Amino acid sequence: MQYHLNGVRTGDPGLVDAAKVDEAESHVDVLIVGCGPAGLTLATQLSAFPDISVAIVDRKSGPLEYGQADGIACRSMEMFRAFGFAERVAKEAYQVNEVTFWRPSVGGAEIRRVERIRDVEDDVSEMPHVILSQARVHEFFLEAMARSARRLEPRYNRELIRLKRGCRDGDPVEAGLACLDRGDRSETVFARYVVGCDGARSTVRKCMGLELKGESAQQLWGVMDVLCTTDFPDIRFKCAIQSPDRGSLLIIPREGGYLVRLYIELDALREGERAADRGVTAEALIERARTIFSPYSLEIKEIAWWSAYEIGQRVCDRFDDRSDGRHPRIFIAGDACHTHSPKAGQGMNVSMADAFNLGWKLAAVLRGQAAADLLYTYSDERRAQAQELIEFDREMARLFSERSASAENANRFQRYFSKHQRYTAGVETRYEPSLITLGDSQQELALGLVVGMRFHSAPVVRAADGRLMELGDCLDADGRWRLIAFAPHGDSGTGAVWNLCSFLQSGGSGDPLCLAGQDEDPDSVIDFRAVFQLPHRKLKLDEMPELLLPRKGRYGLIDYEKVFCADHGSGPDIFEMRGIDRTRGALVIIRPDHFVAAVLAVGSTEKLTGFFVEVFGTQHDKRTAAAGYGTGHAGTRLP
Amino acid sequence: MQYHLNGVRTGDPGLVDAAKVDEAESHVDVLIVGCGPAGLTLATQLSAFPDISVAIVDRKSGPLEYGQADGIACRSMEMFRAFGFAERVAKEAYQVNEVTFWRPSVGGAEIRRVERIRDVEDDVSEMPHVILSQARVHEFFLEAMARSARRLEPRYNRELIRLKRGCRDGDPVEAGLACLDRGDRSETVFARYVVGCDGARSTVRKCMGLELKGESAQQLWGVMDVLCTTDFPDIRFKCAIQSPDRGSLLIIPREGGYLVRLYIELDALREGERAADRGVTAEALIERARTIFSPYSLEIKEIAWWSAYEIGQRVCDRFDDRSDGRHPRIFIAGDACHTHSPKAGQGMNVSMADAFNLGWKLAAVLRGQAAADLLYTYSDERRAQAQELIEFDREMARLFSERSASAENANRFQRYFSKHQRYTAGVETRYEPSLITLGDSQQELALGLVVGMRFHSAPVVRAADGRLMELGDCLDADGRWRLIAFAPHGDSGTGAVWNLCSFLQSGGSGDPLCLAGQDEDPDSVIDFRAVFQLPHRKLKLDEMPELLLPRKGRYGLIDYEKVFCADHGSGPDIFEMRGIDRTRGALVIIRPDHFVAAVLAVGSTEKLTGFFVEVFGTQHDKRTAAAGYGTGHAGTRLP
Repeated sequence: MQYHLNGVRTGDPGLVDAAKVDEAESHVDVLIVGCGPAGLTLATQLSAFPDISVAIVDRKSGPLEYGQADGIACRSMEMFRAFGFAERVAKEAYQVNEVTFWRPSVGGAEIRRVERIRDVEDDVSEMPHVILSQARVHEFFLEAMARSARRLEPRYNRELIRLKRGCRDGDPVEAGLACLDRGDRSETVFARYVVGCDGARSTVRKCMGLELKGESAQQLWGVMDVLCTTDFPDIRFKCAIQSPDRGSLLIIPREGGYLVRLYIELDALREGERAADRGVTAEALIERARTIFSPYSLEIKEIAWWSAYEIGQRVCDRFDDRSDGRHPRIFIAGDACHTHSPKAGQGMNVSMADAFNLGWKLAAVLRGQAAADLLYTYSDERRAQAQELIEFDREMARLFSERSASAENANRFQRYFSKHQRYTAGVETRYEPSLITLGDSQQELALGLVVGMRFHSAPVVRAADGRLMELGDCLDADGRWRLIAFAPHGDSGTGAVWNLCSFLQSGGSGDPLCLAGQDEDPDSVIDFRAVFQLPHRKLKLDEMPELLLPRKGRYGLIDYEKVFCADHGSGPDIFEMRGIDRTRGALVIIRPDHFVAAVLAVGSTEKLTGFFVEVFGTQHDKRTAAAGYGTGHAGTRLP
Repeated sequence: MQYHLNGVRTGDPGLVDAAKVDEAESHVDVLIVGCGPAGLTLATQLSAFPDISVAIVDRKSGPLEYGQADGIACRSMEMFRAFGFAERVAKEAYQVNEVTFWRPSVGGAEIRRVERIRDVEDDVSEMPHVILSQARVHEFFLEAMARSARRLEPRYNRELIRLKRGCRDGDPVEAGLACLDRGDRSETVFARYVVGCDGARSTVRKCMGLELKGESAQQLWGVMDVLCTTDFPDIRFKCAIQSPDRGSLLIIPREGGYLVRLYIELDALREGERAADRGVTAEALIERARTIFSPYSLEIKEIAWWSAYEIGQRVCDRFDDRSDGRHPRIFIAGDACHTHSPKAGQGMNVSMADAFNLGWKLAAVLRGQAAADLLYTYSDERRAQAQELIEFDREMARLFSERSASAENANRFQRYFSKHQRYTAGVETRYEPSLITLGDSQQELALGLVVGMRFHSAPVVRAADGRLMELGDCLDADGRWRLIAFAPHGDSGTGAVWNLCSFLQSGGSGDPLCLAGQDEDPDSVIDFRAVFQLPHRKLKLDEMPELLLPRKGRYGLIDYEKVFCADHGSGPDIFEMRGIDRTRGALVIIRPDHFVAAVLAVGSTEKLTGFFVEVFGTQHDKRTAAAGYGTGHAGTRLP
């Protein structure tokens, strides 16, 4: 954590100074509808920018008390780290380490353990796969929002009843909200952008005239969170049990050491039938679970929550309201635009990833850094991802439900499961080339930092203080791009890296670091760092280019956290782990949402410039655009 | 973290259910005077017990805003983990990784780096050595207290003015407090025990008729926390600079990436002269620092805090008010009983360690678990430790101040410094044999778990869920003893460990686990766990002795967190790291403050019983004692 830059202040360094705000609540930059994982992720991301006004509303009367989602993928933990609360989640959560598989012996009637695999293979992510109540995750988001400069809090008891886009492209969106706690009262909010994070029955989606398309539900499942006693030995492992003839069951141990979630397969549904039609009871779920556990005992002491649901995989055609020549102003994220079965453990994670993809883009456009074209990439990137997830989920659900009488089927399930652990970890998402993902990257310079995929961290040593850390620790959710130079062999800041710095400091019209305003720190838009191959004791900080020891803040203090070295402590270093060309080095551009936008040669200043000009426009464009961005809201022309 | 044992409850699991309390504020079990590190540690420890009433008072009007202490030893971080906030400290703090030494070249006038060493060698502790403002540490303690069952908060503006022990041994101590915020008002508090954590000028100590004894101060030092710019390359390392002729300077980089603490050597004081007499100014400190830094630049942008002080090492003859035949009722801890120079970075750490030593003992006696004899060990153990520290500190200060003209002296300082890194880490404390530290332990069974020293953690894998973790993670600050069986080779719970469990479950009069009351969980007094040599995938949980899967809480849920395996992942396992006899195993008794009380053979049930009978009395004694412990306070006879 870096703080005290503009003077020493006592107290909690995570509590940002409150911004002075005198805007009307009825006019905001972004209106977020829904306080689920997507809505809260988006609100928390936007709350990082004191100059953006946000309203987040929910028809519920208060925060979620008991959530349905619980699985938190490694990738989501990486995002939580960027938001500053991963260590708190890790502390309270159950950590998924292994998965065991039980099924009947061939021709036998009793289940037995047939395999155990690691849940997260080595070097999938430096963060763990954990299980924690969704409600608790919400609380961490709410705390983070509340500690931001605008002290953002949701407005509850507000139900969206209408949504209207203005006639002209620059007009705000008009949203009508029923005030559920105030009789028949309603209010109107004018927003530059509206994002529907309002779940599978999204009103925003309906107002956009879109619908979820996909398979109807055909398989009924039950789920319950229980305190129980059993002599089944794997009750604290994630565990898939396929019974001889009574269906399947998935055990997800929960946080706190005692609670357990059971996913229980029930019957196939008839065409058009819904879960609610079946009148499933908690007793029926218990009974079925006991049968599947047999001959092991299962005594339920308390049911904390239970439900029955049908599996449906559905997705919207697009996630925004773009139309001919009109940039999108209304978006949907999370369950509002795609739904899936819970067992792949993806619902909450994908919803949060949607919002993390959208948040920085909205911020960049609202702050005048980028043109509105950037916003198209949200629907393009996330819809493709949702489609892929649905295919994965469908296959997974099918394999899981296949009766285990056939050992071959069971083996197929295990193989599929195992193969897709990386997928489930959330680290397999790969975006296609676009405005923000360079098609003709020099991928061969860093084979393990795949363009279009999330930046895969590795350990490094910070040169100025010798601290061993993850390079990914630097990727805060602050809307900044990262430019990381991996120095060629022998370069101690005096060779190719020096030349790169000279270019970046030249202040030419295409120089991307010029994007920072006159009064801003040089790294306020693009955060430039370097990783050297030398051990840190060999690197001379006093010979570093100035740009890697930038002066910041009102005192011009030196930021010492830009220079890193490979870790020579033990095992492979970051260059080896990420397949970085030791001879030539590599220059990696990382998006604010942690995705690798480009891999270039350290000397590719032209391509580098070209990329950022595409995204941001030239410095001149940017200034002009910024001038059009005032503090007023309604009717203000957008950049 | 374990929670949900007695039913699922939403919200923050660290927030303990509030206890119903209807005691008068004027009658408490323990009165703590002073809200410094010692007082807050003690209060936080005692707040873990809902049945103990505590008042903590301070003459100041509110919490500390800017603290002087900042160094947090590895051992203190281990303690913070036990209190549940180590990860928050680690996140905000500066981590000390290396120390560099600068001095003039022989005959030269310019300083240069002559050595760099690691600050914490491998396997000194699994926790880092960090730097964080004392005020922030206080805040974490205050939060922990406030979240305890009694929602303990300090009472500020209360100054101790008198202290009187009753005539009879069982009478409470009467404390008079001036209410500084209420004119001439004062109030009286009756307490079973009073602990003075009220600093070097302790009123409690004076009331006890004790004084600090030791060397008078002779060396003047300045200290300042600054935001500065410099071209000195090691400004983010802990760094000792010895200038050619202008004295020495110690750099302690601070949290947040910009702030730095400088300890600056000033002049020798004359006999009887105090720091205040010299009229030191901030300007003079800056001037001296600039001279020592020369030829490197040093520009001070902001002074967050500064002070001048003289070094004095002083200690009290004893830390309690024992007298012929009368058990102690009044104690002193921290600076109230010993003072030292700040540069060894020990002040705050030793104060907290005092309180951590005393807290569980007071709790055990107050709760009727142990006889009051236990309380003698506090002064005995901690005074010896303070004396040792003072000798270390004196030598360190002397070596540090010796002019560096002599390379030999400089080298001696470096050697001493390096040798004592373990000492500074706080892990060298070793208590003598006593009631609670077994003299005739079988140390050879676990050479790396030294009797009288803190339990040295190592990684293990939890059998029930395959989680790789530190065994030390289990040592919560909950007043419980730990009994850890390290199983002999080949034992999977069916051999020596099985026999031990049979003995422990026998319920015989000497069986220590019987100390838990009828309505309490079996591990409520002694927390029994086992570590096996087998890989966790080989261990069969369903063949474990019941005692290692104990039933707890109102539902009789199974606690799955008692069984561990050696980590076969990579490198040496816990048996190798801690020198545990693989053939015979070992049985280790750990005190509530993490110190190893005994190392025994797994089958040494007689010695085991003997030890606990000494500490707790027999079950019969205990019940009798407990009967004498009511909820009333004033005048209640003590056990």
